[in-house]
Amino acid sequence: MGKKVSVAVIKRLPRYYRYLSDLLKVDIKRISSKELSKKMGITASQIRQDLNCFGGFGQQGYGYNIESLYNEIGKILGLDRRFTTIIIGAGNMGNALANYGNFKKRGYDMIGIFDIAQERIGKNINGITIMHMDKLDDFIKENHVDIAILTIPSKNVSEVAEKVTELGVKGIWNFSPQDLHLSSDAIVENVHLSDGLMVLGYRIKEKDLQDEFESI
Amino acid sequence: MGKKVSVAVIKRLPRYYRYLSDLLKVDIKRISSKELSKKMGITASQIRQDLNCFGGFGQQGYGYNIESLYNEIGKILGLDRRFTTIIIGAGNMGNALANYGNFKKRGYDMIGIFDIAQERIGKNINGITIMHMDKLDDFIKENHVDIAILTIPSKNVSEVAEKVTELGVKGIWNFSPQDLHLSSDAIVENVHLSDGLMVLGYRIKEKDLQDEFESI
Repeated sequence: MGKKVSVAVIKRLPRYYRYLSDLLKVDIKRISSKELSKKMGITASQIRQDLNCFGGFGQQGYGYNIESLYNEIGKILGLDRRFTTIIIGAGNMGNALANYGNFKKRGYDMIGIFDIAQERIGKNINGITIMHMDKLDDFIKENHVDIAILTIPSKNVSEVAEKVTELGVKGIWNFSPQDLHLSSDAIVENVHLSDGLMVLGYRIKEKDLQDEFESI
Repeated sequence: MGKKVSVAVIKRLPRYYRYLSDLLKVDIKRISSKELSKKMGITASQIRQDLNCFGGFGQQGYGYNIESLYNEIGKILGLDRRFTTIIIGAGNMGNALANYGNFKKRGYDMIGIFDIAQERIGKNINGITIMHMDKLDDFIKENHVDIAILTIPSKNVSEVAEKVTELGVKGIWNFSPQDLHLSSDAIVENVHLSDGLMVLGYRIKEKDLQDEFESI
């Protein structure tokens, strides 16, 4: 075990991973923290500090070897192992996620989908039959479940999350608009869908102002 | 117009906004960049640099006044104005987003939903009737549309995005797994759903290792 890496650093890793992947595609071999800083809009010192957490793959005067950094971050992110997931809530969001192609490619296998609405039980999504919530306890006990994806109304999220983590589920991916905070030390990722929309709104507002300014 | 703020800084603003909102809820009045740094896992100098872009609301030896910073960031994010959105693709993801409560609260009004599947046309989602894509051109010409939310297969995203931005739509929120790059200078936000899942995977892997280590 190395030293503990903060969750905030971890949250930046998928972005590093994507940027490096883009650089690899155009056949760039190495990059300095300064250049990466310009591309990503993160200070060079923040980049060095982030990447140092994992043993510092950079080299003074040379920068980072992109391919090896890319591979290392992939390993760190666990892209070399597989995780099992279940989806709780077979509504629109549950369906959309069950059919989302990228997850399997990244190592995430969906093994169960649950709902309470009688008319949904028995239907098939992407090869998995929707089961009633009554079956959830036994399913988790009999199968190894790493992650429960919660696509249920905010008011039920807390109760369901407490229950499944007690049964041994290790991580919760919460899609309800309400942030989830658990009493246990189980791992929670709250999705903040609105964030992207707010960024878009900001950029539109700025462009409107600029266009107005330029047309004077 | 102030100086140009990088998109990367903007992308961190919704996070600042949420953290400050949490602090306000527990009645904390002020915070130093150092404390905020610990909470958010961003270096204090990055925080000062980010917030300085907007005129620097901090004060030496006092820190940031949380309420005024919160209000300023809200204004910067455009939460004091409204944006019109349309959804293209009335499948599961389109339905989920059309029913997502937080957007309206944040100032985003959905005014149209479009699809090509005949069996979906005429159906109602959250008060809006699904229209055929044939009607898209006229709709955009007759209505002011700020943002098009694309919840269609990757292979169609580029063509549809080029078309609607040519017609005057200012921003694209792309939910397909494939990143979109436009030829025009229209604004694009690509959603990276897998990022959250990879962070969750990392944290589970780390916890597994730690538990193993502790049980030796």
